[in-house]
Amino acid sequence: MKVSDLGEFGLIERLAAALAARPGVASSERLAVGIGDDAAVWLNGPRAAFATIATTDTLVAGVHFLLDATPWSDVGWKAIAVNVSDIAAMGGEPEFALVTLGLPGSAEVEQLDELYSGVAEACEAYGVVVAGGDVVRAESMFITVGLSGRAELDTKGKPLVLRRDAAQAGDAVAVTGCLGGAAGGLRALQDGLAESESTRALITRQRRPRARLAAGSAALAARIRCGIDISDGLLQDLGHVCRASALGAVLRSEELPIDPALADVFEPEQALQFAAAGGEDYELLFTGGREQIAELTRQADMPVTIIGEMVDVARAGVRLLDGAGREIEVPDAGWDHLRGAE
Amino acid sequence: MKVSDLGEFGLIERLAAALAARPGVASSERLAVGIGDDAAVWLNGPRAAFATIATTDTLVAGVHFLLDATPWSDVGWKAIAVNVSDIAAMGGEPEFALVTLGLPGSAEVEQLDELYSGVAEACEAYGVVVAGGDVVRAESMFITVGLSGRAELDTKGKPLVLRRDAAQAGDAVAVTGCLGGAAGGLRALQDGLAESESTRALITRQRRPRARLAAGSAALAARIRCGIDISDGLLQDLGHVCRASALGAVLRSEELPIDPALADVFEPEQALQFAAAGGEDYELLFTGGREQIAELTRQADMPVTIIGEMVDVARAGVRLLDGAGREIEVPDAGWDHLRGAE
Repeated sequence: MKVSDLGEFGLIERLAAALAARPGVASSERLAVGIGDDAAVWLNGPRAAFATIATTDTLVAGVHFLLDATPWSDVGWKAIAVNVSDIAAMGGEPEFALVTLGLPGSAEVEQLDELYSGVAEACEAYGVVVAGGDVVRAESMFITVGLSGRAELDTKGKPLVLRRDAAQAGDAVAVTGCLGGAAGGLRALQDGLAESESTRALITRQRRPRARLAAGSAALAARIRCGIDISDGLLQDLGHVCRASALGAVLRSEELPIDPALADVFEPEQALQFAAAGGEDYELLFTGGREQIAELTRQADMPVTIIGEMVDVARAGVRLLDGAGREIEVPDAGWDHLRGAE
Repeated sequence: MKVSDLGEFGLIERLAAALAARPGVASSERLAVGIGDDAAVWLNGPRAAFATIATTDTLVAGVHFLLDATPWSDVGWKAIAVNVSDIAAMGGEPEFALVTLGLPGSAEVEQLDELYSGVAEACEAYGVVVAGGDVVRAESMFITVGLSGRAELDTKGKPLVLRRDAAQAGDAVAVTGCLGGAAGGLRALQDGLAESESTRALITRQRRPRARLAAGSAALAARIRCGIDISDGLLQDLGHVCRASALGAVLRSEELPIDPALADVFEPEQALQFAAAGGEDYELLFTGGREQIAELTRQADMPVTIIGEMVDVARAGVRLLDGAGREIEVPDAGWDHLRGAE
């Protein structure tokens, strides 16, 4: 069987199961969150003031970005920002990064200077320190960041984090900011749409995503315990929460905070498609009681919108309903790295 | 300028300097060892019982191994073992790994099962727990491991580690085990040499390197403070110690512990070349006082051989002398990922 048949998530499940079958290879007393969440969480011994959160994410040329069409500094920024987003999705604080570059020998040193200026800019923006890394030769360029950070501990010494498996039936589903902009930006680039204030804004969302660190911390402070970042698309990422929590979810399309810049450039149906399935917005999604979400809305430094609720129907997945309560079918609901590739 | 002109180490220096030029991007109060050693080391706050050591290393198909010629389980083993070796070279203990796979969609799932059985075997051997990872599409396959571990603290709360920049003039230079076997194994594979007990032993050294964890800890216990692992070749890796410590080194070729299996297959001159410059043996190199090395020799679980000494001549690099005191020129002294590539 080819990995393109199994898909990214099927493959990860299979490999995780193979490791889990061997005692101690994918679990330990100190590992609080292992494979399957935005980041791993482990304890640093009995007297430590905080736990460690760690994640890794890779951008590959020709897959995640087109080298000739993307400023290298934007690639550097994004490589850091998408990892910071994973830490934000756990409610943690990023600290130290290891940066691996895969490069053909023909790469230009000046381009790497530019790449690293983007890495440095993002590190400054998010308080990340580059502690090391690796440079290897590779046919096509890639950049892998391993990022570790800290999670606060509760009074019993357990890590205070946002998890995918912590949703409860009846929880409201809320998202930060607005959705669909990054996918709209990608389409604007692909189709060579005329430059305007709106297309520029969308392209910036695509190339310079912002990690919602403050919103993640504010959610924990509001006693919210379930969160994920929207990297693969709203429906797909909420689907991860549903599977991990053994619940379903119902969303109302009229409540989705669609990126306002989309309206100037795309039809409403297309804008909804981007918002529901586009991916790469790196907003955070939370589930929690109405009071907790209201508290988050008061404390957060950005808009938070309730878009639906969790329902007690395991394996029902995510349903998106229109104003009349009819289910909307969304084609291409989310990004799978491997399915159908090559 | 192309990166192939600058080379791996020139490029790392340039990128590290660019980051260091921005305050706080490559340094922090908590970062005890940053870019430029086998692994980074940072503190976990005032009451923590240990510091964190973190490293990352990548294997790329077609560069570090040939997919069709290498059992996938060996690739998985090696991806973990080479990272554990970096932790061993600091005298630390490995703990948690993040594993990133880059894959074409056409990869076979069964091959990945095999790869992960090698990953799991190595994790069991070294007490490593896989805490998470990432799977991405890539034209050619690669595997990146980010590995974190622990370093003990001294009575003042400083991390007890082996560093490249801690050599002193007059120190003896010592290595664990024997050298050149991995390079001999690679040559045996490349040239299709007849199978024998010796070629099998050499090929095993190439494909299933062992990280010298116990020797690293024993060195710290013997009050040795300078160490590195021999991944790129003895002369090159000792050259890193020389540069970091602003010293030179003199080695005696007759003292090098050449892998005994080489003698059955290669001429003595070729065997010396492998031992001095071959790389991938993943033995540890230490420098320290004679008493400390003698103490290590008593405590270590494997042979430790003194091969030369550190001399007070900055920028002199490493000189390899024969029995008559004449300098031996070693061609291709060590592995550079980028220089001359493509």
